[in-house]
Amino acid sequence: MDRRSFLRASTVGGAAAAASSLAAPAIAQGRITWRMVTTWPRNFPGLGVGAQRLADRITAASDGALTVEVYSAGELVPPLQSLDAVIDGTAEMSHGAAYYWQNKSVALSFFTGVPFGMTSRELAAWVRYLGGQELWDEVYDQFGVQGFLSGDTGTQAGGWFRNELTSLADIQGLRFRTPGLGGRVWQLMGASVTNMAGGEIFQALQSGALDAAEFVGPYNDLALGFYQVCQHYYTSSFNEPGLATEIVVDKAKFQALPSNLQAIVRDCAQAEYDQVPSDFYANDPRALATLVNDHGVIVHKSFPDDILQAAAGAAKEVLGGIVNSDDELTRRVARSFIDSVKLLRTRTENTDQTYAAARERFMDYSDL
Amino acid sequence: MDRRSFLRASTVGGAAAAASSLAAPAIAQGRITWRMVTTWPRNFPGLGVGAQRLADRITAASDGALTVEVYSAGELVPPLQSLDAVIDGTAEMSHGAAYYWQNKSVALSFFTGVPFGMTSRELAAWVRYLGGQELWDEVYDQFGVQGFLSGDTGTQAGGWFRNELTSLADIQGLRFRTPGLGGRVWQLMGASVTNMAGGEIFQALQSGALDAAEFVGPYNDLALGFYQVCQHYYTSSFNEPGLATEIVVDKAKFQALPSNLQAIVRDCAQAEYDQVPSDFYANDPRALATLVNDHGVIVHKSFPDDILQAAAGAAKEVLGGIVNSDDELTRRVARSFIDSVKLLRTRTENTDQTYAAARERFMDYSDL
Repeated sequence: MDRRSFLRASTVGGAAAAASSLAAPAIAQGRITWRMVTTWPRNFPGLGVGAQRLADRITAASDGALTVEVYSAGELVPPLQSLDAVIDGTAEMSHGAAYYWQNKSVALSFFTGVPFGMTSRELAAWVRYLGGQELWDEVYDQFGVQGFLSGDTGTQAGGWFRNELTSLADIQGLRFRTPGLGGRVWQLMGASVTNMAGGEIFQALQSGALDAAEFVGPYNDLALGFYQVCQHYYTSSFNEPGLATEIVVDKAKFQALPSNLQAIVRDCAQAEYDQVPSDFYANDPRALATLVNDHGVIVHKSFPDDILQAAAGAAKEVLGGIVNSDDELTRRVARSFIDSVKLLRTRTENTDQTYAAARERFMDYSDL
Repeated sequence: MDRRSFLRASTVGGAAAAASSLAAPAIAQGRITWRMVTTWPRNFPGLGVGAQRLADRITAASDGALTVEVYSAGELVPPLQSLDAVIDGTAEMSHGAAYYWQNKSVALSFFTGVPFGMTSRELAAWVRYLGGQELWDEVYDQFGVQGFLSGDTGTQAGGWFRNELTSLADIQGLRFRTPGLGGRVWQLMGASVTNMAGGEIFQALQSGALDAAEFVGPYNDLALGFYQVCQHYYTSSFNEPGLATEIVVDKAKFQALPSNLQAIVRDCAQAEYDQVPSDFYANDPRALATLVNDHGVIVHKSFPDDILQAAAGAAKEVLGGIVNSDDELTRRVARSFIDSVKLLRTRTENTDQTYAAARERFMDYSDL
């Protein structure tokens, strides 16, 4: 068999196998292998590790009946083509963040996190109990896919700066790396915003092409060495109060799975929505201690008040634009998000935040 | 067959079936049914509902290979005998809270929540990444069982009071219902503390036997009608910064399960550690709005500073007693918890709480 006929034969065979694997009895007897493409580098702390762990969970819980093979960023498709890979059938599943696909629908931003928006607990409450999942399904139905929450970084850090920020004046013209809607907020405040991949930030800071940058938080930022250029670290972001990751599945292929395998995919993704933040909450403070103790980083909990005030105004402008979008579905998603955050923030503020503030003021563990 | 021989026959048959269901090949072919006893009333908001949903998840994900039948409080054993029921083989699994079993080991308190201790995110980080699970396993190994996190209420409310609390003087002799280590904290502060089951609180308030009470939070408290007696609601507890629920399994029977069923039990329990708080975070603020708008409840976010300061001092005294316990394992659990909360609180305070405070101060959603 020459190479061309071999390829033709194997393609035909592959298609036949794929077709038969969608027939229910064949699935019940057999094994299904799904390809998961991710937007993260292999072993990327927190997120890449989480994608692999989720794949392994599904394989283990199904005893291999649904075996998930991970292709990290660039291994099968470039990272920002992960969603397209599921849509065009190159993969059955992707692991990434919904706000990467803002070019398909700006409404997807809300399922990752938006400036001055929901924390990870609030986001899960919206998605699971206040209609968020149903709206998310409507958005993704347009592309024949479905998304599920699969992790969260928790509130991210505000970023790395060469000089301390003393007021809003200090960020006028500042060349700052920050992506997405958060980038628009900084732009409205007067910064000169650029976006670039995580791996390119360090060099841009070192060469002076950037004055400042934000990426994720201590756990990821330590590894990228930003402290070598910027000494001032703001540890609380107003742009990314949480960053939820998603898995996206081909909806028809998902619905063709036996119901127990569908349940396993959903249960494992939800377990990861707890596991990933646990990883960040355990490892961020250890990384921050290293940054401070070994590398002399100066920590600022909060940006100055006038920056926060301007940022909140800019965030309202950005969100106000989306809630008045030309697209009816986008308007509904934004409306649901805004109404839900109004409700959910009352618990955060009355209860959680009040507790944390009381503990900070009064509970000294140092001599225990 | 008379009744006695029928019972004998069915007992023998039952025992034979149980024995054969522990043999690996029989398990692989067949179906296993596990009994889950819970400490919650059937359909109890958040927690009883969560126990049933967890059982249903395991049954669905395993396609019935492991079918979990729920026996709510009192249906098979009294609620506070749930752990004993697993130990003595009456049930294979229980759903409750580890701090109910302080009489077996005070160290178990740390896996539910302690005064001025960890939030739910911090607790998961400790259990999953900082050695908490391994210590928990050591405690439960003494009883032949194993525990896994299965839910969390999030930070609870501080409680219901007839009169506003203006200072520490107001709680001297106050007859207050609050259980466990938190009860010891209020006692050290001068309150007259009693404990009683949730269902008995309302009548004790109404008869004047109690001056005040705390139970869970708005979602549960609304249903119990405390607002009919007490108008002042403090929405942030320092005693229960989180209340984690657990499942406990018979360890030998768990380890005899095929590895995919073990994985399903762990994955589903962890998914519930996200689902249960999502339920509370969505429904607590709706219940609080009802309490305020329909029942005229007066909300106080925070106890007065001198009460918080005295409470922190009392909590240190209580925790200091445990970390110097006569029991070596209890000392190690307390030491690990304290060292971990010192680390984990830095992220909460530097990042999460700072964000929530900035949003509260500057982000006004009312005209969006």
